[in-house]
Amino acid sequence: MPLAMPDGYRILTEAQVPAFLAGIPTVAERLGGGPDDWRAREVGDGNMNQVFLVHGPAGSVCVKQALPYLRVVGEGWPLGLKRAWFEQMALRVQARFAPDRLPHLIHYDEMLFAIVMEALTPHRILRYGLVEGLTYPALAAQMGRFLAETLYGTSDLALPAREKKDLLGLFAGNWEMCGLTETVVFTEPYMVHPHNRWTSPQLDGVAAAVRADTDWKLAASRLKLKFLASPEALLHGDLHTGSIMVTAEDTRVIDPEFCLFGPIGFDIGALLGNLWLNALAQDGHAGPGASRDASREAVLTAAEEIWTGFRTRFLARWRGGGTGDAYPAALFVDSTGTQALEAERQAYLDRVFADALGFAGAKITRRILGISHNMDLESIADPDRRALCETRCLHLARALMVETHRFGDVTQVTAALRSLRTEVTRAVL
Amino acid sequence: MPLAMPDGYRILTEAQVPAFLAGIPTVAERLGGGPDDWRAREVGDGNMNQVFLVHGPAGSVCVKQALPYLRVVGEGWPLGLKRAWFEQMALRVQARFAPDRLPHLIHYDEMLFAIVMEALTPHRILRYGLVEGLTYPALAAQMGRFLAETLYGTSDLALPAREKKDLLGLFAGNWEMCGLTETVVFTEPYMVHPHNRWTSPQLDGVAAAVRADTDWKLAASRLKLKFLASPEALLHGDLHTGSIMVTAEDTRVIDPEFCLFGPIGFDIGALLGNLWLNALAQDGHAGPGASRDASREAVLTAAEEIWTGFRTRFLARWRGGGTGDAYPAALFVDSTGTQALEAERQAYLDRVFADALGFAGAKITRRILGISHNMDLESIADPDRRALCETRCLHLARALMVETHRFGDVTQVTAALRSLRTEVTRAVL
Repeated sequence: MPLAMPDGYRILTEAQVPAFLAGIPTVAERLGGGPDDWRAREVGDGNMNQVFLVHGPAGSVCVKQALPYLRVVGEGWPLGLKRAWFEQMALRVQARFAPDRLPHLIHYDEMLFAIVMEALTPHRILRYGLVEGLTYPALAAQMGRFLAETLYGTSDLALPAREKKDLLGLFAGNWEMCGLTETVVFTEPYMVHPHNRWTSPQLDGVAAAVRADTDWKLAASRLKLKFLASPEALLHGDLHTGSIMVTAEDTRVIDPEFCLFGPIGFDIGALLGNLWLNALAQDGHAGPGASRDASREAVLTAAEEIWTGFRTRFLARWRGGGTGDAYPAALFVDSTGTQALEAERQAYLDRVFADALGFAGAKITRRILGISHNMDLESIADPDRRALCETRCLHLARALMVETHRFGDVTQVTAALRSLRTEVTRAVL
Repeated sequence: MPLAMPDGYRILTEAQVPAFLAGIPTVAERLGGGPDDWRAREVGDGNMNQVFLVHGPAGSVCVKQALPYLRVVGEGWPLGLKRAWFEQMALRVQARFAPDRLPHLIHYDEMLFAIVMEALTPHRILRYGLVEGLTYPALAAQMGRFLAETLYGTSDLALPAREKKDLLGLFAGNWEMCGLTETVVFTEPYMVHPHNRWTSPQLDGVAAAVRADTDWKLAASRLKLKFLASPEALLHGDLHTGSIMVTAEDTRVIDPEFCLFGPIGFDIGALLGNLWLNALAQDGHAGPGASRDASREAVLTAAEEIWTGFRTRFLARWRGGGTGDAYPAALFVDSTGTQALEAERQAYLDRVFADALGFAGAKITRRILGISHNMDLESIADPDRRALCETRCLHLARALMVETHRFGDVTQVTAALRSLRTEVTRAVL
């Protein structure tokens, strides 16, 4: 059955991109010269879209076009094009709160479902750098702040209810992308499903143990319900280390096509979980004379600093005077009131922390047992060694999800993770 | 400044109603004869709309038209007409789950913002009956079931995520009505505000004590945040005893113009809170030789049965196999899994109960200290006696909101309420 495509939509080729861009004055100006001088190269390595880098005499731009199917699977898995509209909309909203951490949006083409944006150079995908053992000194502070600004800024603490409901109504339309998350993160990894794969036969027993672990499945299901019905703020929705581009000085968050109003802890947990997974994968990349201890510790420190940076900034914003409709400041003006409100803020952030830990565990689990894996682990050539790293990840994931309240502080997660490196020596849960 | 009105909108008069209805074939058929045979009478006693009862030779209908301002205040408080659209939309959605408990929707006029529906006869507003001391034997079972069916049916337990998000997006547009609730229920009663009034001077000290009570204000603010950001199900949004019409055998829920996706406990708490307020107001209506003990006990029993009926039915629906995306049944098929899921269901309902108690307290408080009062208390002529009943209500409200977890079961609320009748003998908190 041929895919239904809206009128005017066509899948751009490298050769067609210059003519498309020539019709957008601000792009022509940025690239310099004319369309004959522009070269487009398809560089997409994600699962769902095509991405062109376009260079002209004066500069470059990036064109991201949604394809009507899941690229990694092919036309057999159709996927709505409108995710591109939600992505550019999320970029616009996030830019109100953290413009420096995003690619600059230049143009959105409604007919081609194509986003034209700043080409980020010399940035590269954070995940690739971390897998090589590189460290990024600006990352933690910039990501902690990005999370605080975008999540606080779109919460009921900052947004008047009308404005939040308008946005909520808008982003509710991105249900197809959310449906993918609901399925591949919270459901499939915990059951027998043809989408799933894992390092086999090493993890066969571990995967079976997860599927038989009622507490774990219950934790995943509670998190799923939270994901479905707690629209606390506008989330990126897929904030792993492949959605972040970096240099030593600069961090940018890309690809918010899974955006939704959801629980604040989901974005934070996605990032922390991916960092913790990377930290436990570092042993798989170490070799004789090539210790990864420093890389691992740098990643662990980054995770701690992202959380503390987020928490500090979020609290500072809230203390600065909530402009939203939650916790009306007028009710807490005397000294008893201000103290109680401050205790409430701390409890709020403690709850977000617990949520983040749970979601981090869910994100780790699905990268080992579900449909979509990470090169942090996938690129460990020796399957026995990979399976051992993965087993340690799953031990951590279970603790984060099922025994969340063991962790009163982010440093306790770091400590638990370090212990797992020595305690877990076999692929058994 | 004249109110902005959309093209084609006009405020209907009694004389104009027959001609309006003549254009709707199903209505003409229902009324019989022709427009000259129809008599319309405006009977609206609410705050916001006009309501016509229209009688013809063969039958009758009810016409509810939104006015572009808050009727009880006048043109100085403009209010969007589109609430009528949301009301008819809520009636349509609720009718999928509990058609027998609603007025039958006959027609919606987009231009006049007018709903034409079944005229409920010989039903009367529940509140008026309760104030007279009447009892309604069918009420509790029918309302418990109405709450269970509509709230379960629109939750993530029953609705696939896509369908729920479509509805969520739709109803997010009813922000103006939600904004009224946010303000007059959760905020204004706890501060000095020109909208507020109370039995003065008797309750002056009590009102001041509430405004100084940080724990109470914190509880109200937590509930407000839950109201803002927990879209668990489609709520009626204003389910007090004035939104229910009854006969001895039949119960109908009307006026869902405050509808929203919100926390399940809000609707339940609204109804329980109004019943508990009525129970504590019965002493104000007793007289020599006219005990209200039986009336009060009947109301208390009804409140208990509404909760237990709701809980039982909600659980039965869920056990019957969730068709929504939360708690995928496939993850909990073995005996450990089914037991754990059952424990989770019980915990879910325990949490809904705690929410309901908190919201009940908020609803009671606002009816005594806020803008909008209830005739249950207002019609107690002696202000000292009224103030005493109101003080007991506020004692109960505070306990429900601040010490929620004192109440493990609905019978414990009943017991606490009975104790307050003897313990509280002065208007002091």
